[in-house]
Amino acid sequence: MREPRVAILGGGFGGLNAAKALRGGPVQVTLIDRRNHHLFQPLLYQVATAALNPSDIATPIRRVLRRQKNAGVILGEATSVDVRGKRVLLRDGVVPYDFLVIATGATHAYFGHPEWEKDAPGLKTLEDAIDIRRRVLLAYEAAEREDDPARRQEWLTFLVVGGGPTGVELAGALAEIARHGLARDFRRIDPRTARVVLVEAGPRILPAYAPELSEKAAARLRRMGCEVLVGTPVTAVDAEGVVAGGRRILSRTVIWAAGVAPSPIARSLGVPLDRVGRVKVEPDLSIPGAPEVFVIGDLAAVNDEQGRPVPGLAPPAIQGGRHAARQILRTLRGEPREPFHYLDKGTLATIGRNAAVAQIGRLRTEGFFAWVLWLVVHILMLIGFRNRVLVMAQWAWTYLRYERGARLITGEVPQLLPQGSARTAE
Amino acid sequence: MREPRVAILGGGFGGLNAAKALRGGPVQVTLIDRRNHHLFQPLLYQVATAALNPSDIATPIRRVLRRQKNAGVILGEATSVDVRGKRVLLRDGVVPYDFLVIATGATHAYFGHPEWEKDAPGLKTLEDAIDIRRRVLLAYEAAEREDDPARRQEWLTFLVVGGGPTGVELAGALAEIARHGLARDFRRIDPRTARVVLVEAGPRILPAYAPELSEKAAARLRRMGCEVLVGTPVTAVDAEGVVAGGRRILSRTVIWAAGVAPSPIARSLGVPLDRVGRVKVEPDLSIPGAPEVFVIGDLAAVNDEQGRPVPGLAPPAIQGGRHAARQILRTLRGEPREPFHYLDKGTLATIGRNAAVAQIGRLRTEGFFAWVLWLVVHILMLIGFRNRVLVMAQWAWTYLRYERGARLITGEVPQLLPQGSARTAE
Repeated sequence: MREPRVAILGGGFGGLNAAKALRGGPVQVTLIDRRNHHLFQPLLYQVATAALNPSDIATPIRRVLRRQKNAGVILGEATSVDVRGKRVLLRDGVVPYDFLVIATGATHAYFGHPEWEKDAPGLKTLEDAIDIRRRVLLAYEAAEREDDPARRQEWLTFLVVGGGPTGVELAGALAEIARHGLARDFRRIDPRTARVVLVEAGPRILPAYAPELSEKAAARLRRMGCEVLVGTPVTAVDAEGVVAGGRRILSRTVIWAAGVAPSPIARSLGVPLDRVGRVKVEPDLSIPGAPEVFVIGDLAAVNDEQGRPVPGLAPPAIQGGRHAARQILRTLRGEPREPFHYLDKGTLATIGRNAAVAQIGRLRTEGFFAWVLWLVVHILMLIGFRNRVLVMAQWAWTYLRYERGARLITGEVPQLLPQGSARTAE
Repeated sequence: MREPRVAILGGGFGGLNAAKALRGGPVQVTLIDRRNHHLFQPLLYQVATAALNPSDIATPIRRVLRRQKNAGVILGEATSVDVRGKRVLLRDGVVPYDFLVIATGATHAYFGHPEWEKDAPGLKTLEDAIDIRRRVLLAYEAAEREDDPARRQEWLTFLVVGGGPTGVELAGALAEIARHGLARDFRRIDPRTARVVLVEAGPRILPAYAPELSEKAAARLRRMGCEVLVGTPVTAVDAEGVVAGGRRILSRTVIWAAGVAPSPIARSLGVPLDRVGRVKVEPDLSIPGAPEVFVIGDLAAVNDEQGRPVPGLAPPAIQGGRHAARQILRTLRGEPREPFHYLDKGTLATIGRNAAVAQIGRLRTEGFFAWVLWLVVHILMLIGFRNRVLVMAQWAWTYLRYERGARLITGEVPQLLPQGSARTAE
């Protein structure tokens, strides 16, 4: 008799942990992802800010599942799910299933202004990170070649939209690059005169943390040289800057770290979605009317015991993946389903050198201790001994030398200045 | 009085060494490159074959020249040289000079068939290497999903055109990937059944080496599982393979490592070029009629004392850069020019694990000793302590684990198979 087929969409934290939790089970697992790699998203901002290499935080999914005999991997893009026919439609194929785990996550949202994306890229994929790194480094190059002081300052203004953990981490890292990372590299500009502006529409940054931690984080960012603007919604974005809180801020490098747009595959399921487009799952994370289909991670709208929404972070995705796998195995054994309980182990966000915020149960702390905790947790969570060693080596280098090693601009040859306008080198 | 301005085009081995040799001299140096990084080209094939990260072999040019007070860097693309007006025209600016060193190198040539490039990319830039890595890894993914055995074998056939050092190094690395690197990663294909074919038009591979070394290298490649075809010119290239020696070879992954096309900037100088387009320089490496303009490295047609052409390798470029710098300083002191003498310190090419060829003076050796020598020389030549440590760590990993760590596919989401043709995962 054929073993039940479990298809898993997405090789992020949720999907990968669902697959691993099915190891040894009486099922045939197929993990489908449009990338060949699992991405360690919590460190993605470090690639965008030239501290780490892309492959340091990416592991081939095949490698992770190499020894798991009942799991295969397909590199392909799922376009929709045929819930009634129990099959996933790929752009170039079809994968039938008996159980399905959907873990395709979310991307950034532009609040109905998709045209902002080209001038304010977001940070979700390795390609995004490489693009942002390129923009940041090119901005300094353009400033070095620019004669006009006003335009030069536009190139030396870096603006981050969104005061969540990603926005805070990006702003902190950009401030460090300006102050230390490039200080001696240029001849005509002083990178230390660069402005880094963090803009948040809500009343405080890091809204998922306790108010006192938000305040400490903002104070720390300001000491590092960032301008932190709260209660400042962005209402326009173009190639030369933004309008934030009704005020024009000129900046040639705007990075978007706000909003959540769940994967569009949710719409093909034919089940109710919440306001932003997440799937309203049953208590066991399956979807209404199709108990063989689970939705986990950022794509699922789930509340915790206190009725608060479970955040879009790695730990809930990991727990959701394991939960879905367990329910599949229980169902195969004829056992009833269990509801999903999110166990909040705490959250950490780094701000910069020697500084992070931590909120773990009743512990709330900001500073060096939180930063060390952040380092340890992230090294331990990285997949693969090789990645751990390489990341630690580069962090040590960056820490000791105040220098970011991956300052690489790849891609098309840029034209930095309007034709013929460039000054000579005197 | 204003110090003389030295413009240097190109931040490769030649240009960078010219700039460094002018340190402390009574000149203002401006190095112009369209990339922000110096690329350690001898290890580029290791990025293409997923053993190293792009930034491991790339160093920001600004960083290298950071402490050299009389040197600045411009990120820009030189389009031509106005020899009479003593200025370099950039795509977006103008740089006047008193002395000019042109070190813009060469790229691969398709023997009058530029249309072959899209199906047979060459390996000169980091972008090339990332693209080839992507093609190689995607070929295995496509093979894993392909039902038709003949088409699957096309995906599992890797063809390298050109038996020089780059071709040999690529073929050896591709054979290692097939045999060891991916052996357990797939479920439906066995990567060890992949074919690696090295095609050379001339009578032997590594023509710059002694014939007995060519033969030993070919024998070693064959033992590693490569097919080595000499006297086999390629006469057609398309998306499904090549015609080589009159025979059709089906392969979805063709890599071009043949031919030399010098940088087109040479044509703007108005001086005689050789058959392939290199500048016929004077004995002091300046160009006829303009002693303030030097051409060095791959772009210069130079013969050694025995009348043999100086090869397009790093050492002649380094020596040429230092020579040009010395002549500039001599001219400023009112001293006569010296002719350039190429000092051949020997050449090394790696074939694979524990195997390389070395030809140093009368020493000619193949095997483990040459391989160790290759490792030591390349680690020492790498710029930057950080790069050396990271490269050594990754080489150790690859050596001990038979595993390539940078197996990363970035870029557009691929459609591997004709629409709707893909098989299910059963």
